[in-house]
Amino acid sequence: MYDVLTVREDFPVLKDVIYLDNAATTQTPVQAVSAMLDYFYKYAANHGRGAHRLARETTNHYEDAREMVASFFNMDVANTIFTKNATESINVVSRGFPWKKGDHVIVTLVEHHSNLLPWMRLKELGVELTVVKPDQGGVVDPEDIRSAINDRTRLIAVNHVSNVFGSIQDISKIIGIARQEGVKILVDGSQSAGNMPIDIRSIDPDFFVCPGHKGLLGPQGTGVLYIKEPDMIEPIFLGGGMVSSVTPDSYKMEPSPARFEAGTPNIPGVIGLGRAVQYVKELGVGSIGKHEISLAKETALRLGELDAVEVYGPKNRAGVVSFNVVGMNSHDVAMILDQTHNICVRSGYHCAMPGIDHLGVKGTVRASFALYNTVEEVETLVKTVSDITSLLS
Amino acid sequence: MYDVLTVREDFPVLKDVIYLDNAATTQTPVQAVSAMLDYFYKYAANHGRGAHRLARETTNHYEDAREMVASFFNMDVANTIFTKNATESINVVSRGFPWKKGDHVIVTLVEHHSNLLPWMRLKELGVELTVVKPDQGGVVDPEDIRSAINDRTRLIAVNHVSNVFGSIQDISKIIGIARQEGVKILVDGSQSAGNMPIDIRSIDPDFFVCPGHKGLLGPQGTGVLYIKEPDMIEPIFLGGGMVSSVTPDSYKMEPSPARFEAGTPNIPGVIGLGRAVQYVKELGVGSIGKHEISLAKETALRLGELDAVEVYGPKNRAGVVSFNVVGMNSHDVAMILDQTHNICVRSGYHCAMPGIDHLGVKGTVRASFALYNTVEEVETLVKTVSDITSLLS
Repeated sequence: MYDVLTVREDFPVLKDVIYLDNAATTQTPVQAVSAMLDYFYKYAANHGRGAHRLARETTNHYEDAREMVASFFNMDVANTIFTKNATESINVVSRGFPWKKGDHVIVTLVEHHSNLLPWMRLKELGVELTVVKPDQGGVVDPEDIRSAINDRTRLIAVNHVSNVFGSIQDISKIIGIARQEGVKILVDGSQSAGNMPIDIRSIDPDFFVCPGHKGLLGPQGTGVLYIKEPDMIEPIFLGGGMVSSVTPDSYKMEPSPARFEAGTPNIPGVIGLGRAVQYVKELGVGSIGKHEISLAKETALRLGELDAVEVYGPKNRAGVVSFNVVGMNSHDVAMILDQTHNICVRSGYHCAMPGIDHLGVKGTVRASFALYNTVEEVETLVKTVSDITSLLS
Repeated sequence: MYDVLTVREDFPVLKDVIYLDNAATTQTPVQAVSAMLDYFYKYAANHGRGAHRLARETTNHYEDAREMVASFFNMDVANTIFTKNATESINVVSRGFPWKKGDHVIVTLVEHHSNLLPWMRLKELGVELTVVKPDQGGVVDPEDIRSAINDRTRLIAVNHVSNVFGSIQDISKIIGIARQEGVKILVDGSQSAGNMPIDIRSIDPDFFVCPGHKGLLGPQGTGVLYIKEPDMIEPIFLGGGMVSSVTPDSYKMEPSPARFEAGTPNIPGVIGLGRAVQYVKELGVGSIGKHEISLAKETALRLGELDAVEVYGPKNRAGVVSFNVVGMNSHDVAMILDQTHNICVRSGYHCAMPGIDHLGVKGTVRASFALYNTVEEVETLVKTVSDITSLLS
């Protein structure tokens, strides 16, 4: 296990705040920011577009980052595509999939809007959607997904970990069901990538997406898209860098990943992401996950002991704890935590309105943990929430 | 006029190379990189997604950058959308425009692939394309565009400055023709934004796109999209941050610009872009353009005096000079320039194959200038090319 206090020195922002909004975005370690600085100050140029030394060095660093990310998830570089964020990754699949009228898609009620709206829009193409309900803790029964499959079902889109409940879906089982039934499956790893070990070759989904700026600790503006069979997806963006020949009448696309990365990519961002993933790899994603889960469990347990606090989510949770102080608006609780003890938590709907509605509430306070959070921070959070409840009584 | 040698100190990479690949991407000034560092080290969080102090500070800086870019081009913030690159900006329009079968689009033969392929693809929707030819110098006659308009023409997509020829199109006149004929017009400002004054309210296009990482000096991974009537364009990406309400059956989108920025944006990139645009504004885009054009004219003149060199493009050019050493492959010339005098130029097709074919060559060497290039660098380039031609004879 790594030393948390040593690790914290790599994240300067943490000196001033208790940062518990990691499910929205994490802090980026100085090592990754320094890699971006090296790019800007030592060799910045465009990717793959020139024979000169700076262009070659830039291309090498960019592709090294791709190799790092691919190896982290045990997937081929040809299937490893860089996007702006997980939202783009999901939309590339929903837009580029060869739909036919009458096709059927299955999602769950505990998806982030970004893994819900792109599938809802398919109604325009005559694609039907089934939304499978989880239990009260946000866990989806794989057999409920199996029951929703019919002979027109083409794709299942499901989160790995819910950003509201912290619930962990049984991805291996759900992928197995998809395989048995001949249905494609997309896994949204936004809350799991970098927080728990994921071996793509072993779990074998058709599509896997995640942001670069959450568990992977990369900068905002980066996302990852894995496509098992890249040629089945029509790219959204056409333009420079993704074609091998063009006449006024026709064009020929490059193979993946280039075909999905038209235009100048986020070169500094991807280079920073590569370095951040190396950082995660060196600390060990297993250790990171254990640490986060232990903080989340302690938080859920201690908050649950307070009379006026409702805690949501299952017993076996990832590093996310949603709760409410009974009778108080979640935003007001978040505001007090911030103003009295510099605690940064998120409040409201968390871009997951149907999931929150499922809880029968108008929002939650959410504390989400990263590798750099401490037991002392949990103490301060619990103590402050306890003080808030005392004010009420 | 600003002092070039003082300005060069803001671009550390220039110590080691003669960087003449600015039409591909420019260097980013330390002021912009420092703004990104401040973000990472002092207040990093997600945009618009939390009530806590870091989220508020992040949102303020991100929206300040939007105001800076909007004011630079004299456009409203509500019409100023951040994208990944100009390629995304163009594809958002080509994908989201309300096409009907039989519609007609006009482009020119001197477009970058990113302003050509998105329109070529519309063939799938039954949209017809006319490709207007420029003269030998890469200048398009606005009357040729007028002649190409028929009663089914919906949109004209045209570059402001060609990335191959350095030719400047008469945008005001072409926009005027579009207005008279009731046709929408998209201007690709990839090679003009930050290199010449552009007042969007005054020239009044329907769509204007540019990268953040060329004349605007921002980091790679940023682009700008101006839409005059945002509600006419259907967003490509659906997801978090662009909807005001969601049920399992329906959703309601936010107004522009949020509706076009689903998911976590490139926050550090946009903050860096905002600071870079401020830098350009302070030096004065008029002075920058004059300086670049003067270097390009001198280069074209001097190279044109060499017997074995062909120079392309018009007499009145922007800061781009394409040329060839007769009998030599453009890549070989670029390689020698790099290896003997650390000169970084681009060679080949410049993501504009039809335009290069129009010249009847297999590629060109391209020197493209930015605010920080010097007369001495032009001297070295010309001298080195001259030496190369001597080797041939």
